[in-house]
Amino acid sequence: MEDLLKYAEELSRKVDSFIYETVKGAPQVLYDAALHYIKAGGKRLRPLVVALSARIAGGNENIAIPGAAAVEVLHTFTLIHDDIIDKDEVRRGVPTVHKIWGIDTAIVAGDLLYAYAYKCLLKALELGVPSTNVVKALDFLTEAAITVAEGQALDMILPSKSEVDVKDYIDMVSKKTAALFAFSAKIGAVLAGAPQDLIDKLFNVMMNAGIAFQIKDDILGLIGDEKVLGKPVYSDLREGKMTILVIYALKNLEQAKREKLLKVLGNRSATMDEFREAAKLIIDSGALEYAQSLAKMYAERAVEALNTLSAQDTEALNMFKELVLYMIERAK
Amino acid sequence: MEDLLKYAEELSRKVDSFIYETVKGAPQVLYDAALHYIKAGGKRLRPLVVALSARIAGGNENIAIPGAAAVEVLHTFTLIHDDIIDKDEVRRGVPTVHKIWGIDTAIVAGDLLYAYAYKCLLKALELGVPSTNVVKALDFLTEAAITVAEGQALDMILPSKSEVDVKDYIDMVSKKTAALFAFSAKIGAVLAGAPQDLIDKLFNVMMNAGIAFQIKDDILGLIGDEKVLGKPVYSDLREGKMTILVIYALKNLEQAKREKLLKVLGNRSATMDEFREAAKLIIDSGALEYAQSLAKMYAERAVEALNTLSAQDTEALNMFKELVLYMIERAK
Repeated sequence: MEDLLKYAEELSRKVDSFIYETVKGAPQVLYDAALHYIKAGGKRLRPLVVALSARIAGGNENIAIPGAAAVEVLHTFTLIHDDIIDKDEVRRGVPTVHKIWGIDTAIVAGDLLYAYAYKCLLKALELGVPSTNVVKALDFLTEAAITVAEGQALDMILPSKSEVDVKDYIDMVSKKTAALFAFSAKIGAVLAGAPQDLIDKLFNVMMNAGIAFQIKDDILGLIGDEKVLGKPVYSDLREGKMTILVIYALKNLEQAKREKLLKVLGNRSATMDEFREAAKLIIDSGALEYAQSLAKMYAERAVEALNTLSAQDTEALNMFKELVLYMIERAK
Repeated sequence: MEDLLKYAEELSRKVDSFIYETVKGAPQVLYDAALHYIKAGGKRLRPLVVALSARIAGGNENIAIPGAAAVEVLHTFTLIHDDIIDKDEVRRGVPTVHKIWGIDTAIVAGDLLYAYAYKCLLKALELGVPSTNVVKALDFLTEAAITVAEGQALDMILPSKSEVDVKDYIDMVSKKTAALFAFSAKIGAVLAGAPQDLIDKLFNVMMNAGIAFQIKDDILGLIGDEKVLGKPVYSDLREGKMTILVIYALKNLEQAKREKLLKVLGNRSATMDEFREAAKLIIDSGALEYAQSLAKMYAERAVEALNTLSAQDTEALNMFKELVLYMIERAK
C-alpha cells in the first residue's frame, strides 16, 4: 500500500501541474471558480486508474498524463454541477463553487472545465500518441460524459419513483459513478495502444470496483463522520438520495417506520435529531449488512476480473490491485 | 438568395436526422429536454457555415454533416444553459427547457448535449475522414467551447463593471457569439482537408460576420417585435444586458436620463411602460445609428475577407457569400 500511496502522490503532482498549465485564461473569476475543487485537494483516484492502465498495457506513464488530467477535469466539472443540483454547501472541506460564486458562474465554470477535459486529452498528440489512438480515447471520454449525465438524471428521477429496486440502483450508480472509473481504464489503455481484449478486462475490473466504491460511499454517508467525509453527515438523507441503504430500508421496514423515514427523507428543514432517528431506522432495518454484502459481491467480481490480468510491468499491476482493494475497502 | 434558402432546408433535414440518429438514449425525460430546442426549429446557420466551408475547401458535403451536427448540438447546449442564467422563459416560440423541466434537468440536459456534440463529430471517422483531420476538428470544437464559456462569463461580468467600453463589448461578443461561427468554418474546412491559409481566411470572414450578426441582434432586441424574435421584447433590458446600444446610451446620455435608464436596466419588476421609456431614451441617444455604423464596419471587414476567397465549387462560394450577407443584414 505504501508504494501505491507514494506513486499516487507523485502522479498527482504531475497531473496537477499538467492541469494548471492547460486550464488557464480569462476572465480570472471564471478560472478561479473552475479550479476551486482541484486546488482544494481530492484523491485523484481516476488519474491513477488512467496511468496504471496505461502502464499495464505496456505504455509509458507520460503518455497517460493527458488522459489522467482529462478524467480528473471531467470529474471536477460533474462535481460542480452536481453540487448545484444537490444544493451542497461544502465539498473537500471548502465551500462549494456555487456557494462562493453563485449558481450562474458555477454553471459556466463547469461548462468551461468540460471543454478543458477534451483539451487535456488532445495534448496526447504532442506526446507522440498516434491520432488513431487519441480519437479512440476521445470517444471513450465522450461515452463517459454521456453515461455520467444519464446517471445523474437517473439519480434525480429515482426519488420520485413509487418503488425503487436494487436493479434501478445498480443501473444508476454504474452510470453515475462507476462508468468514469471504467472509462478511465479504457482511456489509459488505449493511449498505450492496448488490444481490445485488455481494454475490456480493465473496464470490467473498474466497473465492478466502481460500483463497490459507490456502495461504500453510501455507507460512509450514513455512518462516517464529517471530518473524514469533508461534507456534512446525513447530506444524502437531507437530499432524499436513493442510496442502497434507503432503498433496502424502505423495502424492509414495517409500515409505521417506513412512513417515519419517508417524512424525513429529502426534508431540508428536518432537525439533526430527526436525521439521527432516520439513520437509526435505516440501520435497524439491516440495511448496512445488506449493503456490505452487495459491495462484497461487486468487490469479488472486480478481484476475479483482476486475476485474469497479467503485465510485464508487475509494479504497475500490483499497484492497480492495491488501488482496487482500496476502492472496495476504503475508509474515506 | 433562393438557392441558399433551398440548400439551407435540404441541409437542415440531413443535419436534423443525423442528430436524431445520434442523440438517443435513456432516461427519456433527459433526452426530451435535450432535444427540445432542436425540435422547436431554429435557423441552423452554423451547420450551413460548416457545410459550405467544407465545400469551398473542395470537400464533399457529406463528410461535413458530422461537423454541422456537432456545432448545432454545441450551440443548443449553450442556449439551454444561457436561458437558465438569463431567466428566459421563451425561446424559438416555445417555453425554455428549465421552464418545462426545471433548472436541475436543464443543467444535465445541457451537459448531455455537450458530450453529444463530440459524439457527432467523432462520427466523421465512419465517413472516411482521416483521424488526423478529425482530431484537428475536435480541437477546434474544443477551442470554440472554451471561448464561448469565456464569452458567457464576460457577458455576466460586464453589467457590474463601472464603465464598459466598446472594446469590452467586442471582446465579449467575439467570444460569446462570433467564435462559434468562426470555428464552424474551421471545422468544415479541416474535415475537407483544407490548407491552413484557407482555414484562416474562412475563420476571419465568420469572425467579422458573427460580430456584425450580434450587433444586429442587439438592435432587433430593442426594436424587433415578439413574433419575429420568438422571445419577449425588451428581454435584454430586463436582464440588464450590456448590449452595444446600452453601452452607447450610458456613455452619451446626460446625467438625469442616464440615471433613469440605469434604474430600469436589469430591473425585472419594471413595467412595460418603463421599458418602453428606457428604449426611447436609448434610441434618442443615437445608439441605433452608432450600432448600425459599427455593424457596417464589421460587415465590410467580412466582405473584404470574403473577396479573397476562391473555390472550384462556385455554387458553394456564392451561397457562402449570400449567407454572410444574410448574417449581416438579417431581419430575423
